[in-house]
Amino acid sequence: MPSESAEIQLPSGTFESRLELRWGDMDALRHVNNTIYFRFFEEARVRLFDRVYPDGFSQRAMLLAHASCDFLRPLLYPASIVVGLKLTRVGRTSLELEGRIADAGASGLVYARGVSVVVCADAQTQRPVPWSAEELQALQRCFSE
Amino acid sequence: MPSESAEIQLPSGTFESRLELRWGDMDALRHVNNTIYFRFFEEARVRLFDRVYPDGFSQRAMLLAHASCDFLRPLLYPASIVVGLKLTRVGRTSLELEGRIADAGASGLVYARGVSVVVCADAQTQRPVPWSAEELQALQRCFSE
Amino acid sequence: MPSESAEIQLPSGTFESRLELRWGDMDALRHVNNTIYFRFFEEARVRLFDRVYPDGFSQRAMLLAHASCDFLRPLLYPASIVVGLKLTRVGRTSLELEGRIADAGASGLVYARGVSVVVCADAQTQRPVPWSAEELQALQRCFSE
Amino acid sequence: MPSESAEIQLPSGTFESRLELRWGDMDALRHVNNTIYFRFFEEARVRLFDRVYPDGFSQRAMLLAHASCDFLRPLLYPASIVVGLKLTRVGRTSLELEGRIADAGASGLVYARGVSVVVCADAQTQRPVPWSAEELQALQRCFSE
Repeated sequence: MPSESAEIQLPSGTFESRLELRWGDMDALRHVNNTIYFRFFEEARVRLFDRVYPDGFSQRAMLLAHASCDFLRPLLYPASIVVGLKLTRVGRTSLELEGRIADAGASGLVYARGVSVVVCADAQTQRPVPWSAEELQALQRCFSE
Repeated sequence: MPSESAEIQLPSGTFESRLELRWGDMDALRHVNNTIYFRFFEEARVRLFDRVYPDGFSQRAMLLAHASCDFLRPLLYPASIVVGLKLTRVGRTSLELEGRIADAGASGLVYARGVSVVVCADAQTQRPVPWSAEELQALQRCFSE
Repeated sequence: MPSESAEIQLPSGTFESRLELRWGDMDALRHVNNTIYFRFFEEARVRLFDRVYPDGFSQRAMLLAHASCDFLRPLLYPASIVVGLKLTRVGRTSLELEGRIADAGASGLVYARGVSVVVCADAQTQRPVPWSAEELQALQRCFSE
Repeated sequence: MPSESAEIQLPSGTFESRLELRWGDMDALRHVNNTIYFRFFEEARVRLFDRVYPDGFSQRAMLLAHASCDFLRPLLYPASIVVGLKLTRVGRTSLELEGRIADAGASGLVYARGVSVVVCADAQTQRPVPWSAEELQALQRCFSE
């Protein structure tokens, strides 16, 4: 049974994005640089919010308040990865996503886990804005498929 | 009085690195991209370990196990920043650094705070290696100046 | 009829690599940053040389001596692109590639054209090394499929 | 004697920007990645145009039409560099800059040379706009100091 949050019952599904590594994602230690893991999580969030706001972001800005990552094993080029996001908390104006970067192949090896906290803000004023019922429904659908 | 850790008495000083923003650090939201904050923390760590190992890293690799950042206010180009690191925990083979990204100007405005956990590893095998007494002393000196 | 070069008859084919844009490829002007076009050409070259050297690069390093790009129209996220490379010159220790970044969709719109000059070097000494007959054959096959 | 161009007499001075390398500028070959040279030239151009337009870019966008770079020797972290730009052509709506990336130290070693062609465009329509006499004077001053 999914746990509850202030506004919505948290969906149990995972929003998945498949991404390809680039050679240039590696650093002088010859594995993918730590900053790139955050780029992967960013890309996954952008794809998520493109679904929540199919008509574009003209009114809203999704501001990142917190990001963290546990680097579990080195990630080497070339590889295809799947970034899986789960919705783990929804506040009045924010939400928390737990992410996982895993191999897109049969192994499904998990390279990293991370957390992002996003604040829903007005695109002009950059001030926090409460989620509307419509936004919450759209969010829930993304994690229910 | 500084708190104690497994191996050393934690020094209370801050290791500071001054960095310049680049225009290209900004993203389509016209502020410095979240991944770049982790680049700034990385640069500060590299400068720290260049001091700990003045003869180079031929024997050791400093592997990042965890990184997090709280984004407190948007950072805009152009700006000079100071990344301050504090040593907050030293384990047998790892250490934890608390970082702060602040304006290099008089305001000293804090843009972000973050945590890094680094593991000391053998450069060849990439296996964790306990800190030597010499390494711990060199570390302590970096935070005592 | 393909033109000739010092060592080989230049193949007329195109080596194609399909790439996905990332949101973070855009800069504060809200289109893909100029440096990323060079990342795309780099990725295409890496895929090319991974084919030429299927056993890896242990003996050789491909050093970039020159790169240029004409930016024909702005590239916006999201998009899938195809980087097409043509072999336009082969010297004793170098080669020239002409590249094109085009939309992967039906439009085939060309966003940019560029040139790369690559030098074949010894992986240890980084000194130029003449192409072997085997390398030239492998190269030719990449542009003949 | 400086050569002439359509609109102005070309100034003979060099616009210099001092930049610091970051460890993360290096790639898996352990030298500064080719895309970063273009970032350095970009940063130098941004600093130039910040001088030409001290009140900001609200009316104009400087669009990059062409960029090239000859990579003369590998650039390794850590290093301080100076990017020098010379104004080599001014057209009705465009200009050409020749750049040089050199060591900021006594050696003055030149790592790379490059060319950028920039088009002056209307910030809204992104259409080319002729340089005004005022813009040309401001430009000239940047290369005369």
